[in-house]
Amino acid sequence: MIFLDNASTTKINEQVLETMINSYKEDFYNPSAIYKNGVNLSTKINQARNNIIKYLGGDFQDNLIFTSGATEANNLAILGLLKNNKKKLIFGSSEHPSIYNVAIDLKNKGYNVEFVKILPSGEIDLADFQKKVDADTAFISIMHICNETGVINDIKGLVKIAKSINKDVIFHSDGVQAVGKIQVNLKDLGVDLYTLSGHKIGAAKGIGALFVKNGINIKPILLGGGQENNLRSGTENVPAIMGFEKACELAIKNQKENYIKVSILYNKIIDNLKNSNLQYKINGDETSKYIISISFNNLRAETILHMFEQQDILIGNGSACSSKKSGNRILREMGVDKSWEEGSIRISLSASNSEEDINQFNNALIEIIREYKKNTNKR
Amino acid sequence: MIFLDNASTTKINEQVLETMINSYKEDFYNPSAIYKNGVNLSTKINQARNNIIKYLGGDFQDNLIFTSGATEANNLAILGLLKNNKKKLIFGSSEHPSIYNVAIDLKNKGYNVEFVKILPSGEIDLADFQKKVDADTAFISIMHICNETGVINDIKGLVKIAKSINKDVIFHSDGVQAVGKIQVNLKDLGVDLYTLSGHKIGAAKGIGALFVKNGINIKPILLGGGQENNLRSGTENVPAIMGFEKACELAIKNQKENYIKVSILYNKIIDNLKNSNLQYKINGDETSKYIISISFNNLRAETILHMFEQQDILIGNGSACSSKKSGNRILREMGVDKSWEEGSIRISLSASNSEEDINQFNNALIEIIREYKKNTNKR
Repeated sequence: MIFLDNASTTKINEQVLETMINSYKEDFYNPSAIYKNGVNLSTKINQARNNIIKYLGGDFQDNLIFTSGATEANNLAILGLLKNNKKKLIFGSSEHPSIYNVAIDLKNKGYNVEFVKILPSGEIDLADFQKKVDADTAFISIMHICNETGVINDIKGLVKIAKSINKDVIFHSDGVQAVGKIQVNLKDLGVDLYTLSGHKIGAAKGIGALFVKNGINIKPILLGGGQENNLRSGTENVPAIMGFEKACELAIKNQKENYIKVSILYNKIIDNLKNSNLQYKINGDETSKYIISISFNNLRAETILHMFEQQDILIGNGSACSSKKSGNRILREMGVDKSWEEGSIRISLSASNSEEDINQFNNALIEIIREYKKNTNKR
Repeated sequence: MIFLDNASTTKINEQVLETMINSYKEDFYNPSAIYKNGVNLSTKINQARNNIIKYLGGDFQDNLIFTSGATEANNLAILGLLKNNKKKLIFGSSEHPSIYNVAIDLKNKGYNVEFVKILPSGEIDLADFQKKVDADTAFISIMHICNETGVINDIKGLVKIAKSINKDVIFHSDGVQAVGKIQVNLKDLGVDLYTLSGHKIGAAKGIGALFVKNGINIKPILLGGGQENNLRSGTENVPAIMGFEKACELAIKNQKENYIKVSILYNKIIDNLKNSNLQYKINGDETSKYIISISFNNLRAETILHMFEQQDILIGNGSACSSKKSGNRILREMGVDKSWEEGSIRISLSASNSEEDINQFNNALIEIIREYKKNTNKR
């Protein structure tokens, strides 16, 4: 089985799983309990919090709220800062559904919501961004790396522009596909809020976090026992947090080495396409190398995917993470023609993929697309 | 180490952990993916959902939404049914903070929120309940078993009364301390919504569920990829769900046997107190036997707890689950005098506690309270 759908989720890292199993066995106490076994867990959670902030180049005064995953962190980033007024909220057009659908919901509820266009390259349209950010803007959310195309947005540059127009604007970025893939230094990026996911970097599903810069006042969306400094109630998921800390450590420590490895795999895929006589398009210019969005004309992605599956190769058709709904909003925003959009597959790599995996994928790709085209032409 | 704080959390069950470890290794795919490994997981999640509904006596048409825990399920039950109008929302006065604090927040925001009194016995004050439920009432939330005292509310009776006054009222009950402790048959109870927790019955932290009766239209509080039939977005926490299913199976299958076992432990504690010459009060009349709230006059619970800790016995001081905030709201509502309230400890049992554990606890209790009283009288 060759797994090339690593942007949808990753196999849990063995060291992470070991950490979690130990924690399930030893750390079962309630971190809110006032006896030592509880207090010790509370300390361990805070150590994990501080370590993750440190790995990401944050400041010791910054905060990190552990959540049930990136979806909750993204919802929290928006709703936790929402004020019941007419201030403008700005979102990128290529945001993940856990941002995009919250934005649409707020728009439907009468909030002042605007979407910044993306260019055919997949990046944020800077001219449109500058036009939309104004003195009335309260909140901006632009993803760091697009989960569909791997396109990298220049978050540091966007934060600078936004804050120069309006120093009070709060800037959030969804970093789910960036952490461990490219270098992430939160202080350098200048973001106020940043979303992390566990299961995209070898930790468990059901754990994520929202980084909150010192001085940003966020309100909780889940109320209850007052855990996480009153910002996220619910008994802390200790084993998942311990595993998440380990996964962040490994992903960030090995980021450069993994990047080099994945770049080689990426280049093998691109070279194979270039040397083929297939008609294809790569969606997105400046990408992380971890995600390759390839479109084929007049073919259906689902069929391609199932033909790969016959050969024990798993790939994605756009955002598996956003369930089975059809159509690829992001490619449409990039201006990809419908006849190409429908035939768009997503290959997402991991450092655990081997060159042999990619050789097999490359051979299968040529074979599958040729066969599919031949059958289509026959009809 | 003798663990008598099982209402705050439980040690993970070995079979549950084994189920989870297998799932972490095998089921890492994204259940939203359209290839077979993804689709199979989606099927497994639905099987777990249907099994849990079945174990709890629900109907095959009912729904169960997996959440990150009981706190999220309780928040969802209230906020997912909230309509922006002046309809009345009714809550018990002894609700867990994940209900109570949401209710207070809504009250502060101008919603029509009322709290039903509880009697000195710890149960809902029926007269007050009947007075408050009216044709204008949209939603009622009354916990099944109180996490502080173990007091059982007659949910079936309350549902009948409420629906006879207003057939359109939606009735939620927080069943966190009831599932596996007493017999729970959701059809028989007649509730529309019911909250479950994983980590209180030997499953992992970070998993819970909200039962939703067929015909009840709930709206999601977390938006995104549209998982859980659009009612709870975020990649499904497959291993935790698999473990939760196993924990429900075991807890419900063994409920009667465990109840008999725990009743013996409960009686040993009560008999020991009766046969002592200690001044004490048991808070709550009709309890589940799993929780014993004991008050001592003019002593401080924290000190008692730490004296037990010296003897490697862990007990609770009220709701550890609701963090370290002091004062016991529920005991105050029951009319417990402050001089007794401050000296209230919570013993919460599990079928994995042995009679020898309880013998040790009983001896320690007599010794600790006498010594503490002696030292207090000296001063």
